[in-house]
Amino acid sequence: MVNAILDEPRDSGMRVMLLDPFWGAWRSAVLDRGLAHQWAQCERTGRLENFRRVAEGRDEPHEGRYYDDSDVYKLLEACAYAFGLEPGHPLRPKVEEFIEVLERAQAPDGYINTFVQLGRPDQRWRNLSDKHEMYCLGHLIEAGVAYWEATGDDRLLRVARKAADHVESVFGPGLRKGYCGHEEIELALARLSDATGEALYRELGAWMVAQRGTRPSPFEEEVRGARRAEVGDTPDRVEVEGTYDGSYFQDDTPLLHQREPVGHAVRAMYLYCGALDCFGTTGYAAALEQIWDRLVSSRLYVTGGIGSSAKNEGFTEDFDLPNEGAYAETCAAIGLVMWASRMSRATGSSRYADVMERTLYNAVLSGVSMDATEYFYTNPLASRGGHLRQPWYDCACCPPNLARLLLSLERYAVSVKGDEVTIDLPIAMSLDHEVGGVPVRIEVQSEYPWDGKVTLTVTSDAPVRMAIRVRKPEFSVRWSAEGPEGTDLRIEDGYLVAEGEWRTGDRFEIDLDMPTVWLKSDPRNLDAVGRTALMRGPVLYCLEQADLGFPTPLFAVDPGHEVVVERHEDPRKARTLRVFGYQESPEWGGRALYEAHTGGLLLPTSVPFVPYATWANREPGWMEVWVRSALG
Amino acid sequence: MVNAILDEPRDSGMRVMLLDPFWGAWRSAVLDRGLAHQWAQCERTGRLENFRRVAEGRDEPHEGRYYDDSDVYKLLEACAYAFGLEPGHPLRPKVEEFIEVLERAQAPDGYINTFVQLGRPDQRWRNLSDKHEMYCLGHLIEAGVAYWEATGDDRLLRVARKAADHVESVFGPGLRKGYCGHEEIELALARLSDATGEALYRELGAWMVAQRGTRPSPFEEEVRGARRAEVGDTPDRVEVEGTYDGSYFQDDTPLLHQREPVGHAVRAMYLYCGALDCFGTTGYAAALEQIWDRLVSSRLYVTGGIGSSAKNEGFTEDFDLPNEGAYAETCAAIGLVMWASRMSRATGSSRYADVMERTLYNAVLSGVSMDATEYFYTNPLASRGGHLRQPWYDCACCPPNLARLLLSLERYAVSVKGDEVTIDLPIAMSLDHEVGGVPVRIEVQSEYPWDGKVTLTVTSDAPVRMAIRVRKPEFSVRWSAEGPEGTDLRIEDGYLVAEGEWRTGDRFEIDLDMPTVWLKSDPRNLDAVGRTALMRGPVLYCLEQADLGFPTPLFAVDPGHEVVVERHEDPRKARTLRVFGYQESPEWGGRALYEAHTGGLLLPTSVPFVPYATWANREPGWMEVWVRSALG
Repeated sequence: MVNAILDEPRDSGMRVMLLDPFWGAWRSAVLDRGLAHQWAQCERTGRLENFRRVAEGRDEPHEGRYYDDSDVYKLLEACAYAFGLEPGHPLRPKVEEFIEVLERAQAPDGYINTFVQLGRPDQRWRNLSDKHEMYCLGHLIEAGVAYWEATGDDRLLRVARKAADHVESVFGPGLRKGYCGHEEIELALARLSDATGEALYRELGAWMVAQRGTRPSPFEEEVRGARRAEVGDTPDRVEVEGTYDGSYFQDDTPLLHQREPVGHAVRAMYLYCGALDCFGTTGYAAALEQIWDRLVSSRLYVTGGIGSSAKNEGFTEDFDLPNEGAYAETCAAIGLVMWASRMSRATGSSRYADVMERTLYNAVLSGVSMDATEYFYTNPLASRGGHLRQPWYDCACCPPNLARLLLSLERYAVSVKGDEVTIDLPIAMSLDHEVGGVPVRIEVQSEYPWDGKVTLTVTSDAPVRMAIRVRKPEFSVRWSAEGPEGTDLRIEDGYLVAEGEWRTGDRFEIDLDMPTVWLKSDPRNLDAVGRTALMRGPVLYCLEQADLGFPTPLFAVDPGHEVVVERHEDPRKARTLRVFGYQESPEWGGRALYEAHTGGLLLPTSVPFVPYATWANREPGWMEVWVRSALG
Repeated sequence: MVNAILDEPRDSGMRVMLLDPFWGAWRSAVLDRGLAHQWAQCERTGRLENFRRVAEGRDEPHEGRYYDDSDVYKLLEACAYAFGLEPGHPLRPKVEEFIEVLERAQAPDGYINTFVQLGRPDQRWRNLSDKHEMYCLGHLIEAGVAYWEATGDDRLLRVARKAADHVESVFGPGLRKGYCGHEEIELALARLSDATGEALYRELGAWMVAQRGTRPSPFEEEVRGARRAEVGDTPDRVEVEGTYDGSYFQDDTPLLHQREPVGHAVRAMYLYCGALDCFGTTGYAAALEQIWDRLVSSRLYVTGGIGSSAKNEGFTEDFDLPNEGAYAETCAAIGLVMWASRMSRATGSSRYADVMERTLYNAVLSGVSMDATEYFYTNPLASRGGHLRQPWYDCACCPPNLARLLLSLERYAVSVKGDEVTIDLPIAMSLDHEVGGVPVRIEVQSEYPWDGKVTLTVTSDAPVRMAIRVRKPEFSVRWSAEGPEGTDLRIEDGYLVAEGEWRTGDRFEIDLDMPTVWLKSDPRNLDAVGRTALMRGPVLYCLEQADLGFPTPLFAVDPGHEVVVERHEDPRKARTLRVFGYQESPEWGGRALYEAHTGGLLLPTSVPFVPYATWANREPGWMEVWVRSALG
């Protein structure tokens, strides 16, 4: 494979500038505080120093966990997006210097992994199931592509490509059968092909997707005997009574035959993304649709979070969705956003993007504090006040994953295919691209997610034929849409489509209702029975003790009473909701611990509900998403 | 101290024969199956063999945990009661043979502890805080006294007394300051004094109670440095940020100054019992009353269980009473029965015996299966079906503790003081004693706890002056009582008292109402808010999936609807309760996981509630004590 020099980034087809105050506030926090905070944490914990140790040939031990390199790569990817948004971002000199360290840390043959390079040179590719070498390289590749696309600097991409070439020299058809215990490199290899125009990377990723789950698995031997003794932190969950059970790694059966989401949730999401990226719509779409249906019908939290169990950081049984005990890892939610976006684009159906939106506005954002310097690894739907955000984690996959997602939101908001522009998030933004050589700008005016009025205005040097597709969110049932004269207006797979000839000044006006809805869960989700959750548009709300002055379990909502929408100055919680219900009377206190139930001790009261994404940003206290309903 | 030979057991003042079908069924299971099962488990796990190893001087390591001797002693105590009830009990030959082993295992100076004797002779009394040597001896003493009282055989008592004499030669005023990290020997020493007439034992116990919590604690040095390294399983909980915190052992402050129950719940109960047994009513009653009030007002489960946390097997904060996560160790409930009984007798007030009864009929009995061969160590108030009874535990304190309590229930049911007979459990039984040299029999006819009609009939060779006191249970609000002519009838400290001259045929007729009550908890117990629990008389009920065919969370009770009492053939669940309420409609299934809350999906239905004590005796499934109330 020729390690061709890349002259300049390929045009992604569209330049998107977000103008949305909601996302603007979240992204500003990441840009202004989060990135520097995370860089400092990577410095403090040796994550950066490990690379310097290798680069300088220092005989020093590796610090931290064996997959820590990946956190650095994800942070570099986030920085790439940041530098695209703010070329003079203060972190840039440090990052540019650090890329040199990476160049020197890479072995002559392209291998790079500080855990192995620092004192364990014999362990290269010896423990695919657990040691995350390819996983780390996948994130290196994503960072390299992003950095090049955002800045035009291809140094990191060269490192990444050299590493990918090395992987290709070891694994593949006719070579060793192997893939990583933690999927990621598959989607990264596809991305590398897109960036470089070199198809072989995608083919390698496709081979890994297809090999996974066939027998014998490369993991089988590893998880027994030798490796177990060698590695302290092998997951117990890969063997069931002596028989290899690869479901933790989605390695139990080929993906083509899988029918439900199993195992570690982040791993599963990355595999599904890799399958779509490597095979397109012709490969795994049918299998993935079945997995998807199972997920959304029985294993998806109302927050959009997934992977309910701490045991395997992943999936369990249908309807096993505990609230306080929810795992719902932030990275799993991010993975679901990635998968859902790809599914919508692969199938053309908005139903996937509906879930993407739910997850993005709720399960993802809950993972980061409003100042972007504290995080949740797990995202429960109820708390007694003991679930606190942390500035960092030993296993710190989530913070940089959040940063890279938030700073690349454009990729999920809008896409273009030929003369078709698809808007999945109808948020305020400005879109520039060319149709048939004619520069076209689409400006989207919107106060989404707080208001449903969306106006798209076209500016074009000459009339252009194009279709503008705007997702009609699932929650919106009373909507209107009006395109300019000369366009054909229709609804198609959940999208409002205006297609025809567009001229400067043409407007596509959409008005979505933004209903406030009390939700009920399928009663097989036993943890939500007798409870109700409040959504307004895509935003899920919760009840926090900080607003109540008393613990949340004392409140029961009356879903029959009107909910009053109130304004808040922070654009991330611009609408709070005043809810009416009943508070357990505090007068009881001081009487016997247990007494006859006489009823009549409930005080009518109203309390504010706040967006779930903003919880745990004030003093610690109880929180509930599923609130007791006075209706039962 | 003279190791006097004991000629025959002292008269306990009264011979009690239980005739109660409820307790009869539980006790028969223990007599017929439980004891042999437990003996076999002690054999299987090396608990018996450890003693044989010592007795035969075998150079073999100790098997099991360092406190396992105590399980054997508790089982011997249970066997003692069994042989009193059934002199020809099939286990008797084995037990009699084993007592010889104990005689030979005891060191010439009286020391006995197989964990130390097998390979650790230098560790005698080196680790008082953790190693349970005196705790084990306390149970040896109780077993020795019980065996002698029940059978007249004083061999075990001699071993026990020799061990007590050894303790007295090491610890005490003017000797080493020391007491055990796990209380027990204090109450046992008092019992030994009662049995032998030798006051010095009680004085040693009293000294230990009084020394506890003074500074410096003998534990302080142990829990730091050396001992930590030496002992693998030291509880972490004894140091808080470098400062010795003895609250786990109730060693933080002298008991006289304690105002709330703290630390490990079983330890706490045994300490309180020891204080009362060693000091009588003049010592610690005032402090204990305050501790009691705190316990029952904020730290007592509705089952009568205590010690809500697994962390310290004990007490936490007020109103911290999780249902599914309840620890509520069986031994702690047994300890509370022991303490409550002593409190009632020390103060004359029935309010303590009311709690004893609640705990006995619910939290204690839930710890044993209906065939007495499987046990609960912890007793949650809710389960998802995963909390299963076990035939034994590595830490097997509970099974033999249950056996000895159930087979000595007479001690808790009734007491006599001079010409005053006090009945705390108005169950069917026959009582024989002498008043002023005249033999008197009192026969109690009753179907308690299922029915409140209690008739006491006196048979006496001559008229006798006596007072018969029968506890009026707290739950009974509409009661009647009628004594024979010539007796004075009054209510005193919660007891119905008939005092005067009694002749053969005289009857004391009591009719207690047995109300079915929906209970509500103080709302500061946040885990019970919006829920209600059902009691009938002293019996707490629960909802089990085995009766429903669907998981319990789907049911919400209508406490406004009448509860129907139904009959069951098993005397341990002779009254089940049919409850009316609403079931979440199963029709929802198959629709979306989350939908708008439209209400109206509840099906009116009725379901049986069964006594909590009998739960988990059928196929595993969900269980709830605090059931969702449709009233809120």
